[in-house]
This record gives sequence, C-alpha cells and structure tokens, in this order.
Amino acid sequence: MSFSSFIPPQRTLMGPGPSDISPQVLSAIARPTIGHLDPEFIKMMDEVKSLLQYAFQTKNEITMAVSAPGSAGMETCFVNLVEPGEKVIVCINGVFGTRMKENVERVGAEAIVVEGEWGRAINPAQLEQTLLKHQDARFVAFVHAETSTGALSDAKALCSIAKQHNCLTIVDAVTSLGGVELRVDDWQIDAIYSGSQKCLSCVPGLSPVSFSPTAVDKIKQRKSKVQSWFLDQSLVMDYWANNAGGKRSYHHTAPVNSLYALHESLLHLYNEGLENAWQRHKDQHDKLAAGLSELYIEFIVPKKERLPQLNAVYIPKGVDDAKVRSYLLNEYNLEIGAGLGNFAGKAWRIGLMGYSAKNENVLLCISALKDALTQ
Amino acid sequence: MSFSSFIPPQRTLMGPGPSDISPQVLSAIARPTIGHLDPEFIKMMDEVKSLLQYAFQTKNEITMAVSAPGSAGMETCFVNLVEPGEKVIVCINGVFGTRMKENVERVGAEAIVVEGEWGRAINPAQLEQTLLKHQDARFVAFVHAETSTGALSDAKALCSIAKQHNCLTIVDAVTSLGGVELRVDDWQIDAIYSGSQKCLSCVPGLSPVSFSPTAVDKIKQRKSKVQSWFLDQSLVMDYWANNAGGKRSYHHTAPVNSLYALHESLLHLYNEGLENAWQRHKDQHDKLAAGLSELYIEFIVPKKERLPQLNAVYIPKGVDDAKVRSYLLNEYNLEIGAGLGNFAGKAWRIGLMGYSAKNENVLLCISALKDALTQ
Repeated sequence: MSFSSFIPPQRTLMGPGPSDISPQVLSAIARPTIGHLDPEFIKMMDEVKSLLQYAFQTKNEITMAVSAPGSAGMETCFVNLVEPGEKVIVCINGVFGTRMKENVERVGAEAIVVEGEWGRAINPAQLEQTLLKHQDARFVAFVHAETSTGALSDAKALCSIAKQHNCLTIVDAVTSLGGVELRVDDWQIDAIYSGSQKCLSCVPGLSPVSFSPTAVDKIKQRKSKVQSWFLDQSLVMDYWANNAGGKRSYHHTAPVNSLYALHESLLHLYNEGLENAWQRHKDQHDKLAAGLSELYIEFIVPKKERLPQLNAVYIPKGVDDAKVRSYLLNEYNLEIGAGLGNFAGKAWRIGLMGYSAKNENVLLCISALKDALTQ
Repeated sequence: MSFSSFIPPQRTLMGPGPSDISPQVLSAIARPTIGHLDPEFIKMMDEVKSLLQYAFQTKNEITMAVSAPGSAGMETCFVNLVEPGEKVIVCINGVFGTRMKENVERVGAEAIVVEGEWGRAINPAQLEQTLLKHQDARFVAFVHAETSTGALSDAKALCSIAKQHNCLTIVDAVTSLGGVELRVDDWQIDAIYSGSQKCLSCVPGLSPVSFSPTAVDKIKQRKSKVQSWFLDQSLVMDYWANNAGGKRSYHHTAPVNSLYALHESLLHLYNEGLENAWQRHKDQHDKLAAGLSELYIEFIVPKKERLPQLNAVYIPKGVDDAKVRSYLLNEYNLEIGAGLGNFAGKAWRIGLMGYSAKNENVLLCISALKDALTQ
C-alpha cells in the first residue's frame, strides 16, 4: 500500500456545517500543543468559558465545551439531568428532535412527544396542551434551530410555558448559537448545547454547553450515577471550573488544539458583537433569498419561521439532486447540503453560517446554481 | 473584558501525553476544512482506517477513530459489548484499570476485580485463578500500558488465558499503540482503544478503536440498545464503513481537521515502520534510564515490566514535587508529569512518546532535572 499526505481541496462550505473557517482560526489550531494542565492552557480555558458565556448570554458558572461533537453535547444534557423513569416532553419537528427522543429513551426515561410539522416552528399552544395533560413532566426539550428543516422555533415562548409548568428546559442550539438571537438567562434555558462548526465557524468536534444553577442542583440531587463516565459533568466540572482548592482535577485529556481554534473563533464573535453577527446572517439570508427567488427555487419554511443561516429549499421538479450537488462540488468547489430525514432527496440545505455568511459566498452560490440548473 | 488571540509557549512535552507534535502534523491540521461527507474526505477516512489497521496489526473491518478522547474510546468498548448483568473480569494495577471497573458498573454489569499491584504488570496466574472461580465471566479487560504507573502487562499471555476460558478481551492501548509491540489479531484482542496524543503524536481528541469479528457478532446480538447514542457503533459503523449500498450514513459531524492530523501522524508511523518505532522508544528509554540513574532517581517499575514510553520514577526524598515541575516549565519550557492516583505527590512520569522520543528531549530532560535538583 502507498500513502501520501492528504491535501484537501479548497471548498466553499455552504452546507449544514461544517462552515467555512477563517485563516485566523486555522492558524490558531496549528499552534504548538501544550499540556492540558499547563497553567497557560488553564488560563485560556477560563477565557473560553467567559467567551462562551458571552455567546450564550449567560452568567452560568457551568459553561464549557464538551470534548466531542454536538451529538455528545446533546447526550451530555440528557444523561446528566434526566434520571430513569422521569418524564420529558420532547418537541419534534425534524431529525434532531427525533434524536432527543432517542436520548431520553436510552436514559431509561419516558419521552412524551409534541409532534410538530417538519419545516415549521414548534407550536407553543401545542406544548401547553401537552403539559396540561402531563403535569408530572420534569423537562421540556426542543430544538431551537432545526438543522434538518431550516425552521426556527420561539425558544423564549417555549421556555416560558415550560417554566409555568415547573419544568426544566433543555435546548438544542447547535445551529442557532451565533446566527440568531439567543439569550440563555433571559429566556430561562436550563441546559443548552451547541456545536463548534456551525455559526461559530470553528473546526468540528467540540460542543459548547451551559447549565443553569437549577440544572446544576438537579444534577447534584441525582439518586443514580450518570450512565456515561466520559460525559459525567460532576467529574468534568472539576476540570473546567475551579474547585475549592483552586486545583484542576484531571478528567480526560482535553482536545488542546481544537480549543485553541474555539478560543479564536469566539474571539471573532466577541469582536464583531453578537447583535452584529445576527444582523449579518439576516442580511446575507435576504440576499440569498432574493437570488433563489429569481431561480424560482422555493423555501420549505414560511418566511417568519425561517433560519437565516440554514436555508432549506425544495429541489425544483425534474432536477437530479445528486447530479446538481456533484456539479457544484466538481465545477465550483461549492458544497451545499442534501436533504435529511423526511426531506432526503426532496430538499437542499444551503448554509450561511458564521464565516460563510458573506457576499462572495451568496454570489457564488446563486451563480453556480444557475449554471447547474441550466446544464 | 478584553481578549486577544492565544499564543501558546513552545513547550517540550515529556509528560504522560499530549506528546510533542511534529510540524508536519500541525501543518496538516490547519489545512482547509471540507465537509464530513465530501468524497475527498471519505477517501481520506478509508486511508485512516487502513493506516490504523497497520498500527494495530489487524485486519478488523471495524477499525476507526472515535470522535472524542481515549476515555470515550474506553466507554465505546464497554457500552457496545457489555450488556447489563454480564460478568466482566477487570484487572486493576493503576488508575485506568479503576476507570474500566467504573465503566463496567455504569453499564449495569458486574465487575470482578483482579487486584494487581500498582507499578507492576498484571500477574497472568492471578487472572487464571479468577477465571476458574468465575466460569460465567464473558469478558476479560485490562490495561496494556498503565499510564498512571508505567507498567507494561503481557497482553498476549492475558488474552490467551482469557480465550481458554471463552472470554472476549477488551484492551486499553492508549499509551501502548505505536510505542511497544502490540498485535491485535495475533494476540486475539476483541476490542481495543487508544488515544491520538500519546505515541502517535497527533493532537489530543481522537480515540482509535478496533473490534474483532467476534466482538462485532456480540454487538449484533445485543438484546438491549447501547445506552449511548453517540457511541453506538452499530450507527457509527454506517458512517465509517461502506454499508451495502456503498453509501455513508450521516451519524455526527466528524472532527475533520483533527482527522487530517491523525492521517498525517499515522502516515509517519507507517513510513518509519512499526518495529522501528518500537525500537526507537526502547533506545531512547535506555538513554533516559542511564541519565536518571546518574541522578540517583529510581524507577517504580521493575526493569522487565517497564514501559519505555512512560517512565514513572520516585520523587527523591526531600524534593518539592510542584516546585521542581514548575522550575522545569518556567526555566526550560519542559513539561514532565505529576503522579496520579496512589502515586500523586510521590512520583514523576516522564514521557518519551512518539515525536518526543528523540535524543534532544532526553538530553534536555536529564540536564534540566539535574539543574532543578541542585537549586
């Protein structure tokens, strides 16, 4: 067998993530590796924590990055908070809601489903009705920005209803963090997870999470051990947070270089300002939507419920899905996303996330799509 | 608050991992991110698999990198293979054996402990006796190279005994892979996990794993779902291995850039040759041992059971542990490891792993230690 170094092509990433990564972030990840208990590294982790608190708009002490992708962040929230036999209301309007249900069941808890329409926001009234029927529910879980459909749910309204029914809230913000308004403390979110490779435009492989004091109390009152040793926050917290003696306990070897990249990408978000980043995503979305409209390509999600950073559109009739995507990739080095779940083969997902949300990408995408559709 | 880019110091890493990373690997990780379903990326994953098969000396079809650190690799093996109520013989001679027991118990299985001495290899006769007492045991689990003590166990002998008693074998090779002889197929290892940041000298955050056909059968015959969705190999396999249709199923977003780095570091190992890498670790260890002996620093582990890549030594009497390690770090940018578990405050762990196992590092370590001890 013969192998050589892998030199990837230079793509423009406009799928559902990973998104384009800035040269500064790629430069950060290549800096010399130091130890995960090195005092200089610990200082950087403290900054990552502060920057994540800013990105999440939270004062939560337990705010950190799980050393694994977003799906592990999801699992971190469920395995730590939910105990066997507890009842969790899970709102499902796409693939990632379905995955939440799977998580609840693998914990040995009971999932009560609020069945939403794919491509629409979760209906708050429907959640309310379900909560009235299940007064013993302990949690409400939902996806803020459904990556599989491009629908944005009203997290503030859903959390407010959940709180009126004394539930803790678990929110998937994998695609929303940094791309649309999100306020963890103001909206009363108890547990939230995200991904590094969407609107933060960091490399894939990390999952920012945050737990409210109420969530931390719930974890501390557990009767049983968390089923995952790796994701057990009571152990991880001693590494990420200063415990009594100011000493960090070794839990696992942190992904040092990926955290350099996360630090750098969060720094960019901080310097740009959250509101400005949200506005930039909105502006680029408007430009993309105008261009798609000229190509007679239709959105799946009604205008008011659309995610600016993830544009799910119907594949025009008679058009070969795979052929168009291959054409874009081969002729223009442009990646757009395929449909997922119910939308497989029926939709494209065009991402405008983080560093990808810029004029040149929108222009390329529209022009290249126009070319592909006239082949 | 004010933040700026994080510029880490240039350390020499001679702790228990992460180890020094070559400029080529750091260059690889900074290459442009592409999609985790990009055909070019899939080709690279196939090469990572082939290179891991070489490193592990196995033909196992299910050989891949878990998208998280070694502790997640450990958990992957236990949660997939072991079902609630099953009996697992766990050999413990250090921190990581203890962690295996914790994993077994969190799966709801029963751990029968072979209690070894810290700083010694596991005694095969002791395993045999335990197996005779527990004829219903389904698994034998042990750590090949105990990172907390520097002891190397005879994996071949332990697996052979396990097989005579119809047990599947689960082996921790976090510190051994690439540093000492390891032959997964010849030695009849059914499930094995490692880490990227030790003798492979890749960035931390990935865990190479491999499952024998017997292990895969055991997974396929499970009566209950794997408790972790993220680590469920029946789902992950559809992404890493070609399934029937040759199509990769999306499971989670792979840590693309870290996998570039793993590809490059495995390529270096392949080009050097496994046997040569093992010999290099042995040679550098001999040089280090000679230097330590001149400083009257004593090894914890008897000569025949020592790991060349992880040298656990007693802190000389009257010497301030933290002060010496800080001195080395501040004056020479040299990291050596503290003791862990039973050896906390009593031992240092000097790593000679992967790219760190070279003349200049040994020389620096001995000279700097000499200086530190005479301060």
